[in-house]
Amino acid sequence: MSLRERLARAREQAGAAGLAGLVVTPGSDLVYLTGYAPMPLERLTALVLPAEREPLLVVPELERPGALASPAGELLEIRGWRDGEDPYALVAALLPEEGAVACSDQTWASHVLALQHARPGVRFTTVGRALPLLRAIKDAEELDALRRAARAADAAFADVLGVRFAGRRELDVAADLAEALRAHGHETVEFTIVGSGPNGASPHHEAGAHEIRPGDAVVLDFGGRMAGYCSDITRTVVVGEPEPALVRVHGIVRAAQQAGVEAVAPGVPCEAVDAAARAVIEEAGFGEAFMHRTGHGIGLDVHEPPYIVAGNRTPLEPGMTFSVEPGIYLAGRFGVRIEDIVAVTRDGVERLNEAPRELATVA
Amino acid sequence: MSLRERLARAREQAGAAGLAGLVVTPGSDLVYLTGYAPMPLERLTALVLPAEREPLLVVPELERPGALASPAGELLEIRGWRDGEDPYALVAALLPEEGAVACSDQTWASHVLALQHARPGVRFTTVGRALPLLRAIKDAEELDALRRAARAADAAFADVLGVRFAGRRELDVAADLAEALRAHGHETVEFTIVGSGPNGASPHHEAGAHEIRPGDAVVLDFGGRMAGYCSDITRTVVVGEPEPALVRVHGIVRAAQQAGVEAVAPGVPCEAVDAAARAVIEEAGFGEAFMHRTGHGIGLDVHEPPYIVAGNRTPLEPGMTFSVEPGIYLAGRFGVRIEDIVAVTRDGVERLNEAPRELATVA
Repeated sequence: MSLRERLARAREQAGAAGLAGLVVTPGSDLVYLTGYAPMPLERLTALVLPAEREPLLVVPELERPGALASPAGELLEIRGWRDGEDPYALVAALLPEEGAVACSDQTWASHVLALQHARPGVRFTTVGRALPLLRAIKDAEELDALRRAARAADAAFADVLGVRFAGRRELDVAADLAEALRAHGHETVEFTIVGSGPNGASPHHEAGAHEIRPGDAVVLDFGGRMAGYCSDITRTVVVGEPEPALVRVHGIVRAAQQAGVEAVAPGVPCEAVDAAARAVIEEAGFGEAFMHRTGHGIGLDVHEPPYIVAGNRTPLEPGMTFSVEPGIYLAGRFGVRIEDIVAVTRDGVERLNEAPRELATVA
Repeated sequence: MSLRERLARAREQAGAAGLAGLVVTPGSDLVYLTGYAPMPLERLTALVLPAEREPLLVVPELERPGALASPAGELLEIRGWRDGEDPYALVAALLPEEGAVACSDQTWASHVLALQHARPGVRFTTVGRALPLLRAIKDAEELDALRRAARAADAAFADVLGVRFAGRRELDVAADLAEALRAHGHETVEFTIVGSGPNGASPHHEAGAHEIRPGDAVVLDFGGRMAGYCSDITRTVVVGEPEPALVRVHGIVRAAQQAGVEAVAPGVPCEAVDAAARAVIEEAGFGEAFMHRTGHGIGLDVHEPPYIVAGNRTPLEPGMTFSVEPGIYLAGRFGVRIEDIVAVTRDGVERLNEAPRELATVA
């Protein structure tokens, strides 16, 4: 889908959602709609997409050459503002005096509060709330980019199975993961969680100076960006011989992950995928030890709608991509998580990650 | 100053500013006040600092072990919330029902709008607007960190003077700059602007595949983080023999930068530093070609208060640190910018960058 088509569709969807306009600031929504990818800054950059006017990209004057040189330069009108001018008044004047306007989820508070002040009659909401599916259904090109990123993450995992774990620090294995992601084509590495032994029981543990020991379970959760699209995979490995409890818990998580993936099909509500994975863990008596949602959408952002969580009744549609990543976390002992990215197909599901899911042994 | 002292001072300052509380989300304010440095995410993490209660750190349950292991774990109470629970109701219940509450400037719109919804009687503003000087006055330890980061950036510049420019791409020189910053102790590289020839006339030009040619002026503006604190330096060099216009413009910018630095002293309003630098450029007839403010505060963030811009009457105080970076941008021809980080001292100014400011020749 061309940028022009995306812009037109965004306006249509905004209209259908009863919005009087969109204000899109730097980040994935802006990249998706215009191809322009500046850093978010204290100086306001905003794509204003009013229901009743042509879109306009408002940028700090010193960013204007960069905006013009981006795909946005061909796509829409760009207006610069200079230090000392009030960019909020400029954007507000393009918005209606009342009605609902959605800004990007990650728009800075400094910007959205200043826009509220400049247009007190407007009710501001977020794209994530008002148009959660704006970027959720991937086209063939996007699916291909996500597939390639996933395959590269699989290959990085295969590489890391061959490195030494015992006696090295989590940090060192994290560096190996980052290097492997880059070697397999990633431009950026966004996270490399290495949680060994008790650290694995903290789902978002950051790799630290802790030394990995024989017998440790090690949660490896890593990903980055390749051609702009994100990878995100988790596997849990064991250093040498596993204790029986680890083998058992790993089997439960694997079955839960399988159940979650098998629940994916068009028309199924997001929360049903969460429920399917959770049921396996609850039935095994570990419900309390699975304290997070089952997954999150993925695309230009690592975390984006749809969220695979209780309460989300959004029906799955072909082209949606998200993680299925149940886990069991036993405080003071170990954690196990298994995560794949999947895509909803016309009649079911495609796993984008294919790295083996059994409890792999490392040295 | 200890974290405990910073927290106490923040509450005091908030009270003096008429605020009923602060809501601090991941980013530099949170690092400054608690030492906790998680990634900003769609799941709410917030330090709630009500005027009338003890501070509380609200975190997603899966981040709680990481928060506990950070300096925040010793400093304050931490409360986890689980996927499916409503963290906004939890935070709102800690805030008064009315009055003004400041959140971090970079708090995501998804969070601040949800908090507004949960506490409709509260008027939300930002730390940058209500307490702009929260982190502006650096203590001796912070000044030392900024000094070391600046010296490392100086050393990186010295290294890059020795690399080949002519016939290589801007990207290649940018990679050299990044490598040099890392070699001199930077943990992260945040930006490496290399604007050669006409590209230099775009102040925030991103280094691209453009080949650098003999005679080009090249704007080098680069920095990153070292021990958490930021560096940011700009020098303009020439590849071989400069054209006379470049020599003249460079001399004007250098004089403007000198005038800006010399204007710095306690009690002087921020805008007077901007005016001093701008006057030199205006008198030389290039006023229109200097389309940005003269500088920005620097510390844990690359850009933070105080901003050195017309209209900012904040008086300088000892311990404030900011950039002085006038420039002249001639569309289609070249750009020149010279930037140092300076600190306000008891009786004047200290330049943290000492790299030579004359028009250096590269090969």
